[in-house]
Amino acid sequence: MAADGASFEQAVEPLRQRIEDRLARYVQSSPDCPPRLSEAMAYSLLAGGKRLRPLLVLMACETCGGDIEAALPAACALEMVHTYSLIHDDLPAMDDDDLRRGRPTNHVVYGEALAILAGDGLLTRAFEIIAEEIVPKSVAAECCADLASAAGWCGMVAGQVADLEAEHQGIANLDQLEAIHRRKTGRLLCSALTMGARIAGATLEARNRLETYGFAVGLAFQITDDLLDVAGDPAKLGKGTQKDAQHGKLTYPALLGIDDSRRRAARLIDDACRAVEPFGEKARRLVALADYVRERDR
Amino acid sequence: MAADGASFEQAVEPLRQRIEDRLARYVQSSPDCPPRLSEAMAYSLLAGGKRLRPLLVLMACETCGGDIEAALPAACALEMVHTYSLIHDDLPAMDDDDLRRGRPTNHVVYGEALAILAGDGLLTRAFEIIAEEIVPKSVAAECCADLASAAGWCGMVAGQVADLEAEHQGIANLDQLEAIHRRKTGRLLCSALTMGARIAGATLEARNRLETYGFAVGLAFQITDDLLDVAGDPAKLGKGTQKDAQHGKLTYPALLGIDDSRRRAARLIDDACRAVEPFGEKARRLVALADYVRERDR
Repeated sequence: MAADGASFEQAVEPLRQRIEDRLARYVQSSPDCPPRLSEAMAYSLLAGGKRLRPLLVLMACETCGGDIEAALPAACALEMVHTYSLIHDDLPAMDDDDLRRGRPTNHVVYGEALAILAGDGLLTRAFEIIAEEIVPKSVAAECCADLASAAGWCGMVAGQVADLEAEHQGIANLDQLEAIHRRKTGRLLCSALTMGARIAGATLEARNRLETYGFAVGLAFQITDDLLDVAGDPAKLGKGTQKDAQHGKLTYPALLGIDDSRRRAARLIDDACRAVEPFGEKARRLVALADYVRERDR
Repeated sequence: MAADGASFEQAVEPLRQRIEDRLARYVQSSPDCPPRLSEAMAYSLLAGGKRLRPLLVLMACETCGGDIEAALPAACALEMVHTYSLIHDDLPAMDDDDLRRGRPTNHVVYGEALAILAGDGLLTRAFEIIAEEIVPKSVAAECCADLASAAGWCGMVAGQVADLEAEHQGIANLDQLEAIHRRKTGRLLCSALTMGARIAGATLEARNRLETYGFAVGLAFQITDDLLDVAGDPAKLGKGTQKDAQHGKLTYPALLGIDDSRRRAARLIDDACRAVEPFGEKARRLVALADYVRERDR
């Protein structure tokens, strides 16, 4: 069932197109929204990107036998939360990044005030979409809780704070590094699987399998991210490299070396694939995605 | 049924204490949350304040015959959203305020990065609490939708953007001013009534009456806020006055003059009281609050 980057792209292209279309619809200007605000939200939300998180929502739903259409609102909501976090992370007071996905960052184009508010708007819109569009309403409430827990003060926001603190306190051990990544990126990525499974009405056992997959792929993704920052090609990545070292950030290559980091990522991908084996053919796109993370060069 | 400030305070004191206790519990440190983050969230959330919005949630629930205990999570969630908006509004890139409720603002104490994240954390926690604690789950989803819609890109965030834009474009007419306030403060305040009524299982007619009350009291509150900035006592207010004029902000006194602004606030309060008259004695705290807004000096 192995697949390279090209076959992953092929496998997910139809899904990605539906995500793009729906995302654009969700931030179309509205009479009550100042045009500059919806424009700033759309600027970052519709900047392309891999759409990994929304793809995972749809693929988890599909793997559990659910209807992909029913999971689209949650998929788009998750991408909005991811995008808001990038906008806020890029701010001068945080990582102070000028470039994202090959384009000037939100605050460079729209100014800091509007960038903060565009982030706030995307985060809030995510919950609005799930609460209004996911059915039944009980699943909508559960998905809101999943997303909030993964993104919030004990999840992604906590991870971002821990990451900022780690910059000042110097390098730590592997446990500390993984605790940061679990909160900063792992839990949000994992919530994709949780929500997709819930919307499909999956059993708890199926959901747990998907969450195991999610944590493993999420961590592997982070390791490959670190590796690309050390040894990637800025032209392919659409952003500068060596940023982590400049910021004195904890990374896997800095802690384990490049080879051990690669081995660790490969092992996590194997774990992920094993977790979804019982779903058979229905999990083929999840397996393709795992293989893509193993091979990625951007 | 008229009541002055003192009798309002007396009427709501037991409710306010329950709100304070519950708010403190909701941001108690957690193993996954870095202590500095929960501390920064608590710093602004537990800084006192009038607690108008959470009180309105509880009072709306009570007015419709519901159990106040059941509405406490939504009440606290709403206060979290209000607090997050204050933290972000106070940032140097926005209103650049150093003082809030008589204390240094969040970013002055914790730095800009943590202040942004504390705001993000409070906003996200609000949805987590409603989604997890409000029952039945269908009402939880409806309340999430109410809150997100009121706080988001066509609500409070839109109002903040419109307000920033108005600063640059100079003074406008009354319609434009009210359109800003409706989004910046009115809709969030109104969502207090909507959620309280929903949690009590109120009829649509009862909910509409409470929303009429909410919009009127919200606008009246904004007018008295503007009036206090022009003619209030900084010692009582715990913050500087004349900020609006310094920032070139649109205000009611600037547009209508002080006397007409006062008359307009009084008329709105009358409208609010009339809207809740059919609830009789059950609405006594709502009436006391309306009278308090009429009389407020801080």
